[in-house]
Amino acid sequence: MSTFEEQIQHKIDTKTKPLGALGKLEAIAKQVATIQQSLTPQLKQPTILTFAGDHGAAKAGVSAFPQEVTFQMVMNFLNGGAAINAFCQQNQITLHVVDAGVNFDFEAAPGLIDAKVAHGTASYITGTAMTEAQLQDCFDKSAAIVADVAKDGCNVIGFGEMGIGNTASSSLIMSAMCQLPIERCVGRGTGLDDEGMHHKTDLLTQVQALHGDITDPRLVMQTYGGFEIAQMCGAMLAAQKHGMIVMVDGFIATAAYLVAVAINPALKDHAIFCHTSGEAGHQLMLDHLKVEPLVNLGMRLGEGTGCAVAYPLIQSAVAFLNDMASFESAGVSESDAT
Amino acid sequence: MSTFEEQIQHKIDTKTKPLGALGKLEAIAKQVATIQQSLTPQLKQPTILTFAGDHGAAKAGVSAFPQEVTFQMVMNFLNGGAAINAFCQQNQITLHVVDAGVNFDFEAAPGLIDAKVAHGTASYITGTAMTEAQLQDCFDKSAAIVADVAKDGCNVIGFGEMGIGNTASSSLIMSAMCQLPIERCVGRGTGLDDEGMHHKTDLLTQVQALHGDITDPRLVMQTYGGFEIAQMCGAMLAAQKHGMIVMVDGFIATAAYLVAVAINPALKDHAIFCHTSGEAGHQLMLDHLKVEPLVNLGMRLGEGTGCAVAYPLIQSAVAFLNDMASFESAGVSESDAT
Repeated sequence: MSTFEEQIQHKIDTKTKPLGALGKLEAIAKQVATIQQSLTPQLKQPTILTFAGDHGAAKAGVSAFPQEVTFQMVMNFLNGGAAINAFCQQNQITLHVVDAGVNFDFEAAPGLIDAKVAHGTASYITGTAMTEAQLQDCFDKSAAIVADVAKDGCNVIGFGEMGIGNTASSSLIMSAMCQLPIERCVGRGTGLDDEGMHHKTDLLTQVQALHGDITDPRLVMQTYGGFEIAQMCGAMLAAQKHGMIVMVDGFIATAAYLVAVAINPALKDHAIFCHTSGEAGHQLMLDHLKVEPLVNLGMRLGEGTGCAVAYPLIQSAVAFLNDMASFESAGVSESDAT
Repeated sequence: MSTFEEQIQHKIDTKTKPLGALGKLEAIAKQVATIQQSLTPQLKQPTILTFAGDHGAAKAGVSAFPQEVTFQMVMNFLNGGAAINAFCQQNQITLHVVDAGVNFDFEAAPGLIDAKVAHGTASYITGTAMTEAQLQDCFDKSAAIVADVAKDGCNVIGFGEMGIGNTASSSLIMSAMCQLPIERCVGRGTGLDDEGMHHKTDLLTQVQALHGDITDPRLVMQTYGGFEIAQMCGAMLAAQKHGMIVMVDGFIATAAYLVAVAINPALKDHAIFCHTSGEAGHQLMLDHLKVEPLVNLGMRLGEGTGCAVAYPLIQSAVAFLNDMASFESAGVSESDAT
C-alpha cells in the first residue's frame, strides 16, 4: 500500500504535463489534498472574516489616518463600497465583518457580527493593550464565529482586518516573535511620511523599553495586540481545528499568524500565504517563516484583500488536480526523460 | 478640461484606500481604462486561442518529448483534458484550439479551428523554417481568426501554444531580437537533462552560424519560427488593431511578442504580461522589455495557462475601479498626509 503522500504525488505527476510544470500550483494542490485527506479535494463556501478594532495608541501619531476611519470603513464594508467587497463579490467569497472592538456603537446590520470586547484597546504606551481576560474573550468569540462558519459548510477561510494604528501594533508583535530590532519591523503603514516614520520608530522603541523582552506568544498579543489582531489569531487556531484551509493575508494578518503558529505549530500545514504586502516588514516575516506567497502585487491595504484576489489561484490548483486527464487516459506519450 | 489620464488617475486615487495601496492592480486598471478610453471599462467574452504546430527541427533532439505529442495534446485539448481546459473552464474563458501546422490530419471538431499552413515547418538546421509566403499566410489566417473572435464581442484575448520543439525555436528568436548570446536564451524546455541541454546549445549555435546575424523581425520569424509562433505573433498584431487587451503568456508567447512589438510598437500599450515562466530565458526577455508580469508561480507549461490563471487578477483590477466607493461617497475621512 502506498501512502497518501505517494498517491497524491502520483496523481499530480501523471497529469498530461511535464513533471512539475505547474510550479507552485502543484504544491498548493498537494497541500489542499493533504489537509482534506482526499485525492479529489473540494473548496466549499469560501469565506473571509474582516475583523475591525481600535487601538489605544492610535492617537499617539502612529498612523496617517484619524481613528474615526476605523468605524467609517466598517460602514463602507457594510455598504459594499470597499475593495474587499469588490473582490469578494468577484470571486464569490462570503464576507462577514466582525466588530472585534471598534470605538463606535454600531446598530445591528446584515453582514456585521458583534464580537466587541471593548471600545478599543488600552494604549501599550502606558501598559498592556488588553487584559488577560480580554485576550481570552478574543479567542473565545472568534472561535465561536469560526464554528458558525464551519456549520455553514465552509472549508476554506481567510482573515482580514481594519484598525487605524494596527501596523504599529503588528510591528511590535513582529519584533517580539521574530526577535528582530524594531527599526526593521516598522513601515509606513497606510501612508506615513519620513517624519512620521521617525516619530513612530522612536515611540515604539520607548514602548519596548517599558515592556522588556517578552516572547510568550499570548503575553505578546496581550501587550501589543489589537482586538482585531487577537481575534484573527484565535480564528486561525479555530479554523485549523475545523480542518479548514487558512488563507493568510498581509502584514497584520501574518503578525496574528506568528502568534497563532507559536501557540499551535500544526497551523502551518493548513496555511496558504496569499500575497506579499508592500509594507516593508512583511517580506522579513515571510523570510522568518520560510514561506513564499502566491502573488506579489505591491498591495498594502489589509481588509483581507490579498486573500480575496489570490483565491482563484487556489481554485486553479484544485481544478487541475480534479479535471485534467492523465497521460494514460488521454493517450499522450510520456517524456523520453522520465 | 482634464485629460483622460488625469481623470482615470483621479478616479483611482479617490477610492476608499490609501494612495497606491492596490499596487499593480492600479496600474492594470489604468491600462485597461486607457485601452478602452473609458472610466468604466468592461471585460467582455475573454478568449484564449491556443495555436499548435510542428517543427522540422523537433527530430534533432531539441525536446524531451517525441513529435507526436503535439497532435496528441491537440486531441487532449479537444477532449477537455489539458491544464488549459481546466483553467479556462474555471475562469469562464472561451478556448479555441488552432491547428496552425500540426503534422497530423484532424477531422473537424467543435473548438478546433483549421488554419493549417503545412504539416510542420521545414528545419532551420538546413534552411529557413518557412517561406515568406507561409509567414504571410500565418499572419493572414490568424488575423482572420481574431476578426471572428472580435465579432463575437471579445475585448480581452490571450494566446497559448503547443508544439514539440518550440522552446528551441523561441530561444533562437529571442537571441536574434534581444541580441543576446544563445547560451543565455536556451533552457530545459519541457524536461531536458544536462546532456540534452549541451546538445541543444551546440546545435543552436551551429544554426546561428548558418543563418548569420539577422534582426529584421519578419525575417527572424521566417527563419526560426514555428507556424504556431508566427500565428500568435499575427494574432497579437490583429488584436491590437481591434482595440483588445492582449494577455501575454510565457516564454514562447513572449518570443512571438518580441517580433510583434518590433513590427508595431503600439502593441505595448495593449499588452498585459500575465506570468513569469519557470523557463530560464523568460526573465531575460522580460528584463529586455522592462516589464513585470502579474504572477510568478514557477509554471512552464505553455498552452496559454499563464494567461488563464492570471485573468482573475485583471478582473480584480476592473472590479475595484468600477465597484469601490470614493472617500466622498462613502463618508470616509482622508489621510492627514494627503
